[in-house]
Order: sequence, then structure tokens, then C-alpha cells
Amino acid sequence: MILTLACPDRTGIVARVSTLLFERGANILDAQQYDDEETGRFFMRVVFDPREGDLDALRAAFAELAAPLAMDWSLRDSKTRRRVMILASQTDHCLADLIWRWRQGELPMDISAVVSNHPESTFPHTDLKGIAFHHLPVSAQTKPAQEAALWRLIEETRTDLVVLARYMQVLSDDLSTKLAGRCINIHHSFLPGFKGARPYHQAHARGVKVIGATAHFVTPDLDEGPIIEQDVERISHRDRPRDLVRKGRDIERRVLARAVRWTLEDRVLLNGRKTVVFTD
Amino acid sequence: MILTLACPDRTGIVARVSTLLFERGANILDAQQYDDEETGRFFMRVVFDPREGDLDALRAAFAELAAPLAMDWSLRDSKTRRRVMILASQTDHCLADLIWRWRQGELPMDISAVVSNHPESTFPHTDLKGIAFHHLPVSAQTKPAQEAALWRLIEETRTDLVVLARYMQVLSDDLSTKLAGRCINIHHSFLPGFKGARPYHQAHARGVKVIGATAHFVTPDLDEGPIIEQDVERISHRDRPRDLVRKGRDIERRVLARAVRWTLEDRVLLNGRKTVVFTD
Amino acid sequence: MILTLACPDRTGIVARVSTLLFERGANILDAQQYDDEETGRFFMRVVFDPREGDLDALRAAFAELAAPLAMDWSLRDSKTRRRVMILASQTDHCLADLIWRWRQGELPMDISAVVSNHPESTFPHTDLKGIAFHHLPVSAQTKPAQEAALWRLIEETRTDLVVLARYMQVLSDDLSTKLAGRCINIHHSFLPGFKGARPYHQAHARGVKVIGATAHFVTPDLDEGPIIEQDVERISHRDRPRDLVRKGRDIERRVLARAVRWTLEDRVLLNGRKTVVFTD
Amino acid sequence: MILTLACPDRTGIVARVSTLLFERGANILDAQQYDDEETGRFFMRVVFDPREGDLDALRAAFAELAAPLAMDWSLRDSKTRRRVMILASQTDHCLADLIWRWRQGELPMDISAVVSNHPESTFPHTDLKGIAFHHLPVSAQTKPAQEAALWRLIEETRTDLVVLARYMQVLSDDLSTKLAGRCINIHHSFLPGFKGARPYHQAHARGVKVIGATAHFVTPDLDEGPIIEQDVERISHRDRPRDLVRKGRDIERRVLARAVRWTLEDRVLLNGRKTVVFTD
Repeated sequence: MILTLACPDRTGIVARVSTLLFERGANILDAQQYDDEETGRFFMRVVFDPREGDLDALRAAFAELAAPLAMDWSLRDSKTRRRVMILASQTDHCLADLIWRWRQGELPMDISAVVSNHPESTFPHTDLKGIAFHHLPVSAQTKPAQEAALWRLIEETRTDLVVLARYMQVLSDDLSTKLAGRCINIHHSFLPGFKGARPYHQAHARGVKVIGATAHFVTPDLDEGPIIEQDVERISHRDRPRDLVRKGRDIERRVLARAVRWTLEDRVLLNGRKTVVFTD
Repeated sequence: MILTLACPDRTGIVARVSTLLFERGANILDAQQYDDEETGRFFMRVVFDPREGDLDALRAAFAELAAPLAMDWSLRDSKTRRRVMILASQTDHCLADLIWRWRQGELPMDISAVVSNHPESTFPHTDLKGIAFHHLPVSAQTKPAQEAALWRLIEETRTDLVVLARYMQVLSDDLSTKLAGRCINIHHSFLPGFKGARPYHQAHARGVKVIGATAHFVTPDLDEGPIIEQDVERISHRDRPRDLVRKGRDIERRVLARAVRWTLEDRVLLNGRKTVVFTD
Repeated sequence: MILTLACPDRTGIVARVSTLLFERGANILDAQQYDDEETGRFFMRVVFDPREGDLDALRAAFAELAAPLAMDWSLRDSKTRRRVMILASQTDHCLADLIWRWRQGELPMDISAVVSNHPESTFPHTDLKGIAFHHLPVSAQTKPAQEAALWRLIEETRTDLVVLARYMQVLSDDLSTKLAGRCINIHHSFLPGFKGARPYHQAHARGVKVIGATAHFVTPDLDEGPIIEQDVERISHRDRPRDLVRKGRDIERRVLARAVRWTLEDRVLLNGRKTVVFTD
Repeated sequence: MILTLACPDRTGIVARVSTLLFERGANILDAQQYDDEETGRFFMRVVFDPREGDLDALRAAFAELAAPLAMDWSLRDSKTRRRVMILASQTDHCLADLIWRWRQGELPMDISAVVSNHPESTFPHTDLKGIAFHHLPVSAQTKPAQEAALWRLIEETRTDLVVLARYMQVLSDDLSTKLAGRCINIHHSFLPGFKGARPYHQAHARGVKVIGATAHFVTPDLDEGPIIEQDVERISHRDRPRDLVRKGRDIERRVLARAVRWTLEDRVLLNGRKTVVFTD
């Protein structure tokens, strides 16, 4: 079981939580916490083995503990896999990498669907075997209808998490808000350095010596959502924009994969415009 | 206050420790723990603000809690600085860097002494102002006597931690054993790749593409002590041995500085031949 | 066209080579060179556009220049793709990654065959569409026969380069010698730290803080061939051997891909037990 | 001797340059070149041993070759050290590191002066032994006069290169222009992410997971000059602004040291708003 919680900081929280778990027979396997001095907010993640404990009773007891402390909390069986929808457009490097890692057992999730604004034939070499694929084309005119269809699909497939794996459409404010905290985007650049279109070309024009990629939660404020993970690679004057794009694919793959894995393992907690990430 | 502990794993440790702290009025600021599945050993580090609590009573209460659990533990006021002795030979890059960081306030320690087997005039550009310097020359014949003098100095200066900052003498088994767990060495290479003499020349001869450095606790088994920290830099065929030595100095400085800071902040716990490092 | 050469160093080599190219109407696009002070050996790589020049005449003229200078040299049309055979055993992370990069256009090669000692059904999710697959099972008894079949296949498919993409069989001295300089292996560890079996488990047992992978040319001396590329990732005490294996897959993929790309682009020149790598 | 040149690309440049050197008896030790496809500009750096050659004659011959090709070029004896002025304000981490590296022999330069807008007593622990120190205080009112004094000092001390080692004053457009191409600044952040004041605090507020530093040439357009070098370190939610500042000091030290060393070794060539850096 994985317990995560966030609440205003005060003394005794760790004692209460750990004592409750102990009294209910649970064995704590891992615990991390963080006390944000600036905001006075406390964050905690506990992995425990409930052993013979009664989970429903535990949950009820925890709810009782949590209410007066104004806790946001989640108690989840780590064996219950989250349902993840992956959206892609014309390139498959992030999509294929996520699927490959999922088949390797690196990503504890079920894929509820792969969705693209391009037809399945766009991905002749992506291993979609056994995965539901939905083609939802979109244009400026059809965008509201397409997003409505997308939302219906998210609901019908009981999708918990949406991953924009180089999906080159900007979500509307409405959909971004509906998916708050459960939609991850990979920005193909090192935020906040180069926002907007063709960031690798911008980076090349500026002559930077390091490029990067950023995985963040989607918010209505484009490219401004809470950052989950970033990584970089060195470049030199020899690298042309197409080399930056090639190197960028590698960075994007690993940054997005880490962000998704950490989210699936309940390691990522929202802290206002930022995140707390209890890495392994 | 910083509490660290290690003991055989069993349920309820976190609950007992955090409850004891809570009941004594302490506020936990940070806590990290680790449960080694292989050895069944549990490790914990807690930073707390004791507030009005009675520290002697807390210490007594904790001793009572710890004994039946077979805990190794330490409770230390983080405002009480450890006394650190730095040993160097002819190069000063690690020595000067540690002193510089100490003056910057990065290393919460008092320097009990700087000791070298070479005279103070070896270090005309090292900022030794206000630091006790001891010249303890050594030869094969005088080694036992020199180590005896060194040990006396360690005791007289109430030194808590000894840092070998490129001290090019191998400590005897006897002295290594006396300093177990409180003597850090910087190995000028990436262990276990290149042990022994002139490791950068060995690395050059082998044509590796990455070199590194290793900070570890000193044990009688040379270059085999528990590793605290390692880091690396890329090299190419253009790098001559002297370039590797130059790049190596940079890696050694930052690896040793991290290892010392983490040790001073009680972040490094011994786990058999390995370490648990609760990094910040 | 890509020209590479290696010869004893003497004055005037660059002048002669560049003048010959100029007189034959070629335009140099890129040139890198390296003078190994230790061995007195000179290495050069020139990329040029021959324009209207007569390539056969150029080749003949270059042969005349090269002979008295005792040059090892190669002149190759960069549009002529090398034929590459990929060998794998039971895991597909390196195999699938090479195929994916090849389909992306990152690796300028034709795949002459994929060969495994396990049947094609071992790789249900590897995108082998349009690629010849050969199952060459092997046991201690059948090894000589299997290697003979493998060699025949290399010859029949006019394979230029063999890539051991986690092929878990040790090549015989005889086959290693035959493939000298054109067979790349990925060693799933940071050589020379942890040779032999289960290197990530060795690394875990030693408690290192950084793991890596090494791509090298295959020689009869196992794990001692000239290193082409290495890379690393940080680990912590929390990483179990299975986490090291997971992180290792990522390092292996990118290290092998770089080594193969650089080799395909004639960027890797042998220098005794080492390599000269003219990176981009 | 180190020859650097930049000119419009055309065939035969390498042939002409290398033949001239060969005919004058020089032996090329290292050469790198770069052909910028976008701008059609060609860049080259050649290190050679002139042996018995007549340098004045060589220089005259090269001038003849260079003129019709519209070359910007420089021919410099690598044994003639450049005269470098270092400017600092209240912190000494970059200043002390440059001086330390200079004493180690890592930076082939003479220090013409250390200049600060604060008095020498600001740096009680910086090893200024044998180095001329000038205190040039500055206020909004006295800025023109202070810059005039600074410029006089630059001229009187025959300073070739000015290094702003965390000099917290913005140079006027006039002085920036006068020092074009020979004044290096260290920006205490990863450009172009966080310009302006307190960039580490900005980075903390944005919740980035990687911070960096940037060394660039000074131009009238603040923080927009050609980038020479950048580097980064990972951070986490645990890092407070003061931790970012601490980690930043380490990044700034190594980024500035690399940029200065490369400039001193004629490895950095201007290419419009960007640089070509022929790294070792």
C-alpha cells in the first residue's frame, strides 16, 4: 500500500500516522517526508505492508485522523495499476518508448488507450499489439467536438492519467482544468528557456551549449505547469538543428519515462506551482 | 538536533521514535529512513526542533527505547560542530578547497588541525591563517613513531573526524582500525576500476572514456572501504595523463567536499561494507 | 565521401592530403586530426564533397600518396550504407533500440540480418518487420558448428559490421580474430570495474554510487577490447540489483547506439589497445 | 604557435594554409576546423611547431595568403601569456578559483590586476600575494568616472582579456563595446532561462529540477552576449534558495574556469551571436 498526504505542518503528524499504521498491524517499508518552510506545508509518502490488517478499517481510521488535520491524502494498493491513456501526434519516439518500457515491466500501469489526431497507419513500426487505438482527428473547427470525444473516451476507459507523448495539440483551458494533476506533458525543451514553437531551433539560434527537456503537469497556462522532471545533454557548435532534434528525442524519452514512472508510484505531489518528488 | 539510528528491522520503529519525540514536545523537520531488504537492517535519520523539551530527559528516554531494539544510535546537537583534522601531502587542491568551503560556511566544522608529512612551506598559497599546522615527517623507519604522534594529536585536539585530503601515506592497519568510521579518504580514481599507484595513468593506458574519483571510509583493507560518494567526467583520446590529472583534481575536490559535508551532517551511516547516504 | 587514415606522424601530411583533394576539385566539409605523442601515430578524418571530380582517379592518386607514408586508409562514399548484423540473446532492449533508431534515420546502415541463439518467438514485441531473422542455437557441444554457420552467414550477407546487442555468448578466439575491428560489444557495466558475470550485482555488493556501460571492439581477450564509448548514471543505496539492471538497460541502449553510429560514420579509428573517436 | 582564422568558406583553404605551413618548415600538432553551413563561414585553429622557420617571414607570407580570402586571423606564440584583469565585487568564489588554478598552472596567463568596487579588505582569505589590487569604488553618480579609470587601467596594464568574476556592476554600452570579444562574464544562472536579478531565487520559485551557469562574452545587450560555456547540476524540492546559491557557486567556478582557459588557448572564435569552441 502507498499512502501519500499533504497538509499544513504541525507537530505530531509523523507520530500519529506511524502509530496508526503500527496499531493496525502494518509494517512500514519506506517513508519520505518534506516540510516546505516557505509555505508551511507538509508532505509525506509511506509504503507499507498491511499484513493481516483490515484495509477498510484502516482507511476509515485514517479518514478520521486526516479530517481535523485538513489533509489531502490518498491510500492506494500498489498492485492496482493505474489506467493510462497515451496521446501522440506524428512522431512515435515517446509513445514507442513508453510502450516498450511498459512491456519490460518498468511502468506499473494498464494502457487504457492510445489516441492520436493521426490515423493508426502513422505508426507502422510502433508495437500497438493488444492496445486499443483511437483516431480522433482535429482541426480548428472541430476542436471542441474532438475534445468532447476525447473526454468521453477518458471517462469510458476509466483513465486515471493522461500522458501527452509529443501530442502537438494545445489542450483547451477547459480540458486542462478537468485533467488538473493527472495529465503530463513532455515539453521538447528546457523550460523556461525556450517556450513556444520549434524550441530546438531557438536554442540553436541562441548558441546554447546544453539542451534539455521538461516533463510537467498540464495547466491552462501553457508551458507553465508544475515541473516534474528535467534533464539535459551537452551540445556543441557542430550540432545542427536536426542534431538537436535527434539528441532531444533521447532526452525527451528518458525525462517523460521517469516522470510517468514516478507519478505511477505516487512519488509526485503537487505543491502549488511546483512539485515534491520523492525519488527512488 | 539530529538523531540517527540503525537496528534490526521490525514493525513499529518509526511509530515509537516519532511518538517519543512528539510526547517530549519536539517538532520533526526532516526524516528519512531505509530498510535494507538483504540484511534486514533498518536505518533512520531524523532532524527535529526540541523546542522547550528537556534534552537530557529526552536522551535518557531514547536510551531506554533503543536498548531492547539493539539500536546503534546517535543524538547530536547540529549546532555543536565536529572537530576535523585534515591531512595532506604535497598537493593542496583538496586541502585548499575544504578550507575555502569551510570559510564560506558550507562545512559546519571546526578544523582541529592541518597535518602534513611535509613542512608548512609546502603550502605557500594555502590560506592557513588561524589554523594549527603540524609537520609530522615520515619515513619507512619512523612510521610507527609518526603514527603514534599523529594519534596523540588526534586525541589531544579532540578530533572527531580525520580527512585524508590527498595524504599520500597508507595508514597502518592499527591506525585504520582505531579510526574506523571516522576517517575519510579521497581515492584519485573511480573505484574499483583502477586501484593502486598512478590510477589516471592506468586509465589513460586503458583508453577509458570516463574518469572518476571516490570518497570512502578508511579500513585496513586499502581502497576497499565503504564508498561514500563518487563522481565522473568524460574524457577523450585527446586527454593526456596530465589532462586527466587536471580534470581529476576537479572531481576529487567536489567528491571529497560532498562526502565531508554529508558526514558532518550525519547523513552517512555504515551498512557493513557499504553506506547509506541520506542526501539532501 | 569520408576519408580516414592512420600513419606514422611526419610533417606535411595535412598539406599533402588537403592539396590532393583541392587539386582534384573536392571541397572539404569537415576535418579532424589527432597526433598521438606517445606512439608517434597520426590519425585523420576528412569529409569532402568530390563535386565533379573523378572518384576512381582520386582513389588511385590517393593510393600513390599513401604508400610511401605507410598509411592505413579508407575512402568511402557516405551514401553507401554499411551492412550490419545484429546478434542478441534473450533480452531485446539493445536490439529494439537499434532497430528503432535505424527506422528513425539515426543509423545510416542496412541491417543484413538479426541473429539469435534463441528463436524468433523470443522477441514478440521487437519490430522485425522486413528484417531477415536467423535462429542459430548453440550449446557447448555445437559451438564450433554454430560459429561456422554464423561466419558463413556473415560472408553470405556481405556483413561489414557485427553488433553484439546483449548476445550472451562468448565468441571464440578464432571468430573474434576474424572480426577484428568490425565487431562491437556492449558490456553491461563500467569497465574495467566489474568484469565477468552479473556485473550489476557485483556493483551493488560493492556499494558504488555510479554505474555505467561500455561499448568496445571484440578481441580474443574478453572484456579487454578497445573501448569506444562509456556512460554512467548515479545510483543510491535505495537501488536494488533489479533497479541497477533497469537503469543499466538505459545506459546500455545509449552507449551502444552512439558507438554504432560513430562507427558507421567512420569516426572510430583503432589506436593499438585504444580508440581515437572523432565525435560530432 | 597557434593560428586561428575565420573567413567566407571556399575550396582550398585547408590546402593553402597547411601547404604554407609545410613549406615554411612547420609541423602541425593539432588542427580543428568548422564550416558553418548556415552562414557560409569557415573557422580553423591550427597548433604547430615552427621549428627552425623564420616567424616574421611566416607571418608576412600568411598575411599575403589571408588578404584575398578576407580572413580574420591571429598568429600567436602559445608561450606568450595573455595579460588578464579579473574584476570581482563582494564574493570571491570565482576570483579565488581563478587565482588558484592560475597558481596550479591550469591557466596560461599573467594577471595584470585584480579590480574591485570594494576594498581589498573584502577579501581577507583570497590569496592575492604578488598580485596588483585596485579598488575602484562606484556609485550611480561616479560610474562614468569609474569606468574611465578602469579603462585607463586596462590600457596601462596592457590587459588583453577582462574577466568579470561575479563583478556585480553592469558595464556601460560604451565600455562593453570597447571590450567586445575580450571580456568574459559569468552569469549566475542557466541562460536564457532566468535573466536579471536573483536568478537562483527565480529558479526556486519556478520549481526547476536543474540549475546552471553560463559564461559569455559581454555585449551592450545585457545577458545576451555569445555563450562560451554552460553547465548544470540537478536540484530537488529539498533545495532552498541558499542551497541553490551554494550549488551555483560550484557550477560558476567550473564554467568560468573552462571559458577562460579555452579563451586563453585561442579555442573560442566568435561566430556572430554565437561561438565556435574547439574544445580539447
